[in-house]
Amino acid sequence: MSPAVTTDSREPRDEPPIAKRLIIGDPLTSHKLDDQLLPKKMALPIFASDALSSVAYAPQELLMILLTGGLAFLVFAPWIALAVVVVLAVVVISYRQLIKAYPSGGGDYEVASKNLGEIPGVIVASALLVDYVLTVAVSVASGVDNIISAVPVLNGGRVELAVGFVIVIVIVNLRGVREASLVFALPTYIFIGSVAVMIIVGLARVALGEPPVASSAEYAVKGESLTQAAFILLLLRAFSSGCSALTGVEAVANGVPAFRKPKVRNAQATLVLMGSIAVCLFAGLTALALFSGVHYAEDPCNLIGFDCQNVPQPSLMAQVAGATFGIGSIPFYIIQAATACVLLLAANTAFNGFPLLGSVLARDGYAPKALNTRGDRLVFSNGMIILGIAAIGILIVFQASLTNLIQLYIIGVFVSFSLGQIGMVRHWRRLLRDLKKVEEVAASAVDTAAWTSLSTLPQDGPSAVASRTAPGFTPISAQNIKRDRQGAKVGLVINSIGATLTVFVLVIVTITKFTHGAYLVFIMIPILATLMVGVNRYYRDVDHEIRVDDETHFGSEGDVALILVSKLQKPVIKAIDYALAATHDKTLAIHIAVNTEESEALQRQWQKHAIPIPLVIIESPYRTFASPVAQFIKEYRATHGSSIVTVYLPQYIVGHWWESILHNRRSRRIANQLMLVHGVSINLVPWLLDSSELIYGRRSRPLPGQERGGLPAEDPDATVPVKADSIKR
Amino acid sequence: MSPAVTTDSREPRDEPPIAKRLIIGDPLTSHKLDDQLLPKKMALPIFASDALSSVAYAPQELLMILLTGGLAFLVFAPWIALAVVVVLAVVVISYRQLIKAYPSGGGDYEVASKNLGEIPGVIVASALLVDYVLTVAVSVASGVDNIISAVPVLNGGRVELAVGFVIVIVIVNLRGVREASLVFALPTYIFIGSVAVMIIVGLARVALGEPPVASSAEYAVKGESLTQAAFILLLLRAFSSGCSALTGVEAVANGVPAFRKPKVRNAQATLVLMGSIAVCLFAGLTALALFSGVHYAEDPCNLIGFDCQNVPQPSLMAQVAGATFGIGSIPFYIIQAATACVLLLAANTAFNGFPLLGSVLARDGYAPKALNTRGDRLVFSNGMIILGIAAIGILIVFQASLTNLIQLYIIGVFVSFSLGQIGMVRHWRRLLRDLKKVEEVAASAVDTAAWTSLSTLPQDGPSAVASRTAPGFTPISAQNIKRDRQGAKVGLVINSIGATLTVFVLVIVTITKFTHGAYLVFIMIPILATLMVGVNRYYRDVDHEIRVDDETHFGSEGDVALILVSKLQKPVIKAIDYALAATHDKTLAIHIAVNTEESEALQRQWQKHAIPIPLVIIESPYRTFASPVAQFIKEYRATHGSSIVTVYLPQYIVGHWWESILHNRRSRRIANQLMLVHGVSINLVPWLLDSSELIYGRRSRPLPGQERGGLPAEDPDATVPVKADSIKR
Repeated sequence: MSPAVTTDSREPRDEPPIAKRLIIGDPLTSHKLDDQLLPKKMALPIFASDALSSVAYAPQELLMILLTGGLAFLVFAPWIALAVVVVLAVVVISYRQLIKAYPSGGGDYEVASKNLGEIPGVIVASALLVDYVLTVAVSVASGVDNIISAVPVLNGGRVELAVGFVIVIVIVNLRGVREASLVFALPTYIFIGSVAVMIIVGLARVALGEPPVASSAEYAVKGESLTQAAFILLLLRAFSSGCSALTGVEAVANGVPAFRKPKVRNAQATLVLMGSIAVCLFAGLTALALFSGVHYAEDPCNLIGFDCQNVPQPSLMAQVAGATFGIGSIPFYIIQAATACVLLLAANTAFNGFPLLGSVLARDGYAPKALNTRGDRLVFSNGMIILGIAAIGILIVFQASLTNLIQLYIIGVFVSFSLGQIGMVRHWRRLLRDLKKVEEVAASAVDTAAWTSLSTLPQDGPSAVASRTAPGFTPISAQNIKRDRQGAKVGLVINSIGATLTVFVLVIVTITKFTHGAYLVFIMIPILATLMVGVNRYYRDVDHEIRVDDETHFGSEGDVALILVSKLQKPVIKAIDYALAATHDKTLAIHIAVNTEESEALQRQWQKHAIPIPLVIIESPYRTFASPVAQFIKEYRATHGSSIVTVYLPQYIVGHWWESILHNRRSRRIANQLMLVHGVSINLVPWLLDSSELIYGRRSRPLPGQERGGLPAEDPDATVPVKADSIKR
Repeated sequence: MSPAVTTDSREPRDEPPIAKRLIIGDPLTSHKLDDQLLPKKMALPIFASDALSSVAYAPQELLMILLTGGLAFLVFAPWIALAVVVVLAVVVISYRQLIKAYPSGGGDYEVASKNLGEIPGVIVASALLVDYVLTVAVSVASGVDNIISAVPVLNGGRVELAVGFVIVIVIVNLRGVREASLVFALPTYIFIGSVAVMIIVGLARVALGEPPVASSAEYAVKGESLTQAAFILLLLRAFSSGCSALTGVEAVANGVPAFRKPKVRNAQATLVLMGSIAVCLFAGLTALALFSGVHYAEDPCNLIGFDCQNVPQPSLMAQVAGATFGIGSIPFYIIQAATACVLLLAANTAFNGFPLLGSVLARDGYAPKALNTRGDRLVFSNGMIILGIAAIGILIVFQASLTNLIQLYIIGVFVSFSLGQIGMVRHWRRLLRDLKKVEEVAASAVDTAAWTSLSTLPQDGPSAVASRTAPGFTPISAQNIKRDRQGAKVGLVINSIGATLTVFVLVIVTITKFTHGAYLVFIMIPILATLMVGVNRYYRDVDHEIRVDDETHFGSEGDVALILVSKLQKPVIKAIDYALAATHDKTLAIHIAVNTEESEALQRQWQKHAIPIPLVIIESPYRTFASPVAQFIKEYRATHGSSIVTVYLPQYIVGHWWESILHNRRSRRIANQLMLVHGVSINLVPWLLDSSELIYGRRSRPLPGQERGGLPAEDPDATVPVKADSIKR
């Protein structure tokens, strides 16, 4: 027996399957969290790809809606685009304030829940969760559209392509934020650069009197004749669709903790840079599309002259690029590739934001705590997997149709924009009120000692100011208060404008999109919000239920160990050995007899091997296992007095998933049932089958009774089955 | 705290969810097994519905294949039908022998594995498993066909109807054999009666010179011109399809244990009665279909004049019934309803046979042992659920098309027929050899003492005769031996004919059906057989691995209890209390610190509540929980010597399925990981949350330290939440 050695010097790996490690990479320590932080040049592509990529579809959707009214409506395009640009600029400036006031990354959710209360908070959270899913779906759908525009033969596999991309993004993200940013930085910069060049070249040609001509410029468009109300509604719908350019702006505010220090200033700079680029690209693309005469129809068969049955309608981006550089030219393919890439990367934004929000919600008790478990790679793997599955579901249901998905998209964005901005208004007003109180206290104080005492005032007093405002606010002095008041007033004005505008847009979007599918979002948000509140109440009730109170005290007495024996095999021997080592007051083996032959054989074996504990045979007329044991415990207590009972059950540890089908079923069932018996606990004695060596590098050799533990394994063989990467930890 | 009472006087129910009990009914004791046995008049509908119902589609499929050659081929129909009848008669007589020789219900599987070895045994088992699934699929598909023939508006929901019926059958069967037979007896008898009446009426009209005329008699049929080889192949194909009338004959042989005593004679009588009825119905229906000019085409559009696009082709049964009694007449609907019912009940045959075979396989170690767990209602619920899922899968894949399913069906039947019959031939030959040995011994013996000694001969000698042959064979005398020899010779002749014929039909069926889908069965059977052998080898290896040997001995020493603490809450207190009651050599609380604030708060609480065991704080830089504990155990052993370690983990018991999403995740993960550490066992201390009262009628009130157990609960409140049906056990 001697060559078998103990190998417990190796700690168990937290995620044993090797396949997982191969896909996801090695685990990281908490200290490495800092290394995972993003410099600005990396943060821009990560957080901005969503907002920037939306310029790839926003102009297209804007023009498309206008064209449903006929070519004449294109004259309104510049004005609508201007309105979108204004909203975009206001929102960016508003979020700059939000980042400063709430740099913890909770974004709109934090602002709404802190300033407006729980219900607005969970509504924002629900809207954001829906939005993250739709961001993935819309971005991937648009990316696939642009790929198909460049390579039309792929038209048949639209949904399959989209689903495939989501799966790839999930895997890439499970590997962690850092690699993601490296992979993602380049395409975003290429996208910005190449689209900027295209806009400049195109507008230059317009200026030179040789404007590019889109392939669809020649097609007439079937228009509907409209009443005046419908005419206004059409303009508003076009504006709503154009507002999809704003999606993703909030990503930076939610991602502040991922920035390098100084976090707030870096995040603000990134936000403003992103906003400026988005405005330029959106305006430039819309202009170029109008100059080159792009006609993009909701139903391609409304384009008179276009072979709508056999050819996919090229995206606006593809048409503009084709018009500027020529279809099939190298710059055309560069732009299409960069657009597709940046759109797929935009989906990635959601994979940064969704799990983070999920973990914030889990931390606050609004989501299952499992979402707050950091996975191996310092990312919240559970949330990512849920997001991926939800996005794939949506893509399949909506057949990866961009136009259908866009209808759902903007609602959630503006719900969270609006509530976030309203929350910010409340925030600044409260701050101004607090500052006023401070001033009053300061005015009544004459010496500096009073100033100092301010910081020790009770909760509701001015000291709350310090906690409510951002870092960099701390030293309280008359000058500082004045500066803060100034800042708060500016913030109040900015966020008031932002709130008014976003609520206004939300109303427009709701009116114009509701019947086009947005009602689904209005169904989902309350459902999610209700679930969140429910989860919160549930956790609160459970916490209350299990809170230690003064009446909690110790004093259980009596100690019986029962070892359930069906056949006399090594795992049972090990359980008996462990029970003996634990020196219980009384140790009994229990056999539930459902088959006379087997129980007689067991009794013979018991004597033959001289097992040192008594064997109790219990008949089971119902062929059940747990009930007779429960009955036995009851009778035992009736004669021997109360006692806690530890039931020992061998538990097989196996190496393949399919082995678990072949083992432990009955044992698990018995355990679940006996745990319902009062005063019973279940002691699982693991038995590592040989196959478990495949993945755990160890088996239950050392039999019971052998020397164990204490010293690290000296035997070199013991380390053979272990992978190098598990040793280095 | 006093009003809370212990309620452990109630034993846990083995299947707690109330919903399950409502659907399935109350559990039964082993003693009630006898009451579940079937009298003949119940056994006939249960076991014969498969074989009888197959006459509803066998004539149709026979004629359909012939008609692909054109109307001229119908002249061969009577001869082919005659051939099918001959095969049917021979198979019934052969199975009469099998029931006598192997009354244990193992059927062809037992015969093949005992006489031909393991591989033929598992092949037969695989073929039977495939067949059971196809029996359900074919019967339900044909039943739905007949329903649609009577109510054509249901044509659109063919697959949905079929799947719905399978689900209903699964639920009915989970309620147990007895009720099933009561529900099922009537329709089977109505089917036999009404079809018999129809045949008599129809043939009487033919005899009177007023033959019924089928609705399809007027349609011409597009035929193919055939070479001579194709001509013969067509006849053989029609014969193969007609042989689907034989399916289900083996059900009686597999169900012998479910018969009342005398089991063998009752089963044999049921088999012969069933065979006679099947022959009459098959022959009568085929004759009537020919006389009334039924034209049934594989592709209904080959029927010239039939509106194949909009109208479903009525089944042969519906056409004959319509011709005899008039479409839409009351007898027409009675026959259609009875046919549909009996076909759906035929699916039920499989639900009797499949779980039984599954449990026999599990008993022999060829299937997961979970299949050998009798469910509440003395039926093998696991097997039934698997069968239902497989049948639904097949129905969906083949879109509930009878003709496509029939192609797969007959192969498996004849594989098991053939191997079973070959096994029987081997059986009789071995018996004759054994009897000869007995005679030789008897011839050399002069006094009765020698006769008596025969029964104590060693294994390979004549005493094996007694064990190999059926009950009623026992007293050994010259006369008995002669009678047995006679019987064995008759059996040998019968089963030799049976074997020859079934092998012949198997070859024909294989040749004619292989390319029509039967190849799938030829793929499935080896896969299943390989799986079974694999499972068997696996269990054998594990049994060998865990067999107690002479080197197994006791002697583990040292005993440390670790209680993992994340927050100080009641479940943790309970775990500590239990650990203290178990008086381990050393009891320590371990806190894995991932958050400094939380661990400091815990330390304060620890002191405040004066918890009587030391608290060890372990930093976890990787935010893992199991590894630091494993490391601690290693270091503890290094300083304190080897010892076994019991890790106490609270386990929440919840009342709703969704609560398990919100609990126990981390705890389960830690348990799984720590079980890999050598010398560690996991003690799960259950904590019944209030919600668990919903289903278990008890919660973890009595807090730790309160009086527990020992006496039955006196408090009447204690029994309030329990359902009456759980108390009466």
